[in-house]
Amino acid sequence: MKLYGDLMSGNCYKLKLLCDLLQLEHEWIHVDILREETRTPAFLRLNPNAKVPLLELDDGRTLSESNAILNYLASGSALLPQDRFSLAKVLQWQFFEQYSHEPYIAVARFIGRYLGLPEERRAEYHSKQPGGHRALRVMEQQLQDTDYLVDNRFSVADISLYAYTHVAPEGGFDLSDYPAIRAWLARIEAIPGYQPMPTN
Amino acid sequence: MKLYGDLMSGNCYKLKLLCDLLQLEHEWIHVDILREETRTPAFLRLNPNAKVPLLELDDGRTLSESNAILNYLASGSALLPQDRFSLAKVLQWQFFEQYSHEPYIAVARFIGRYLGLPEERRAEYHSKQPGGHRALRVMEQQLQDTDYLVDNRFSVADISLYAYTHVAPEGGFDLSDYPAIRAWLARIEAIPGYQPMPTN
Ligand SMILES: N[C@@H](CCC(=O)N[C@@H](CS)C(=O)NCC(=O)O)C(=O)O
Ligand SMILES: N[C@@H](CCC(=O)N[C@@H](CS)C(=O)NCC(=O)O)C(=O)O
Repeated sequence: MKLYGDLMSGNCYKLKLLCDLLQLEHEWIHVDILREETRTPAFLRLNPNAKVPLLELDDGRTLSESNAILNYLASGSALLPQDRFSLAKVLQWQFFEQYSHEPYIAVARFIGRYLGLPEERRAEYHSKQPGGHRALRVMEQQLQDTDYLVDNRFSVADISLYAYTHVAPEGGFDLSDYPAIRAWLARIEAIPGYQPMPTN
Repeated sequence: MKLYGDLMSGNCYKLKLLCDLLQLEHEWIHVDILREETRTPAFLRLNPNAKVPLLELDDGRTLSESNAILNYLASGSALLPQDRFSLAKVLQWQFFEQYSHEPYIAVARFIGRYLGLPEERRAEYHSKQPGGHRALRVMEQQLQDTDYLVDNRFSVADISLYAYTHVAPEGGFDLSDYPAIRAWLARIEAIPGYQPMPTN
């Protein structure tokens, strides 16, 4: 199988981390977001929504959306619960991530870290702060009660939320007020097979 | 089981429609979004993320995120595919909905239809138009090839996307350029048990 992605993107890193943890063989194809390589005709044929990450199976079928790919690849492993309610809770956290977390934290980080906080996007950057902290407070509350997000055991829900939470300071989110989140980050980083996000 | 929601919200209507189609018994508890009833201490205890819809099971366990609830309730029915790749495709469309569709189309509709397009949100309303049309074009392309979004058969993916697509004109999105989407909407509305979104 082929995975198309750019490792500066947390959405893509989710899949890299899963492959490392589960030792899944794959070919990683670098697609440069800043150079708009998701907008080429060749890439649009693979994903009409013009986004990475993207999975291409050996038979040519494709799958987009980081969390959909994550669950597909983790299916049958200990990282995706089989129990109906536990699985629903994993999805709850993943939809929370895409709707209430990523649009604030990942976007602020992109503007701050990759665009270098240019004047014309400063207002947008600041507008992302309250929503990002709201999301962090929701996570903090859960992680005060349990070591991992679902059923007190490590799952793809943790991978989905780890991706942008651990780099939230790059978007201006100070994590010192979130001790339960910091303990959870450290717990994940101690899991055998864990590999950090490449910095460049 | 109890479902908390406000039927002017497409995210809540998804669940009402599923319950109608599958004839699932439930108690519907109205939570008024405009009156900020999701911010009361009692509601925050049920959902710290302060959003409807919310499912409360008879044993008190709760589940948030419309698409997570949808899949939980549809589990075991013909509306949620069991095949691993088909299920992943359903998730792909649902994450697409939450990330690339709802934040444009639902928000424009909310500003236009429920807030009455007030002067101070006009710029935001207009800023939502290109993203909404991008999402509609992605759907149109799929629906030119297949009658439904996944495997050519009706599934929860169609319910997730139907919710805000059928009211997209209320957000200023003219559907006349999207014939395949219009045919798909009509197909869904002809399914036995289908009930329209209440208008008020
Ligand atoms: N909901 C998508 C979001 C993916 C996404 O936003 N990808 C960005 C990189 S983080 C991208 O490809 N941007 C390129 C572009 O929009 O042209 C997912 O979870 O996979
Ligand atoms: N990602 C959530 C979105 C839910 C959502 O945004 N709910 C809105 C109504 S459509 C809400 O509860 N707003 C009230 C508030 O934010 O106070 C889902 O799919 O359930």
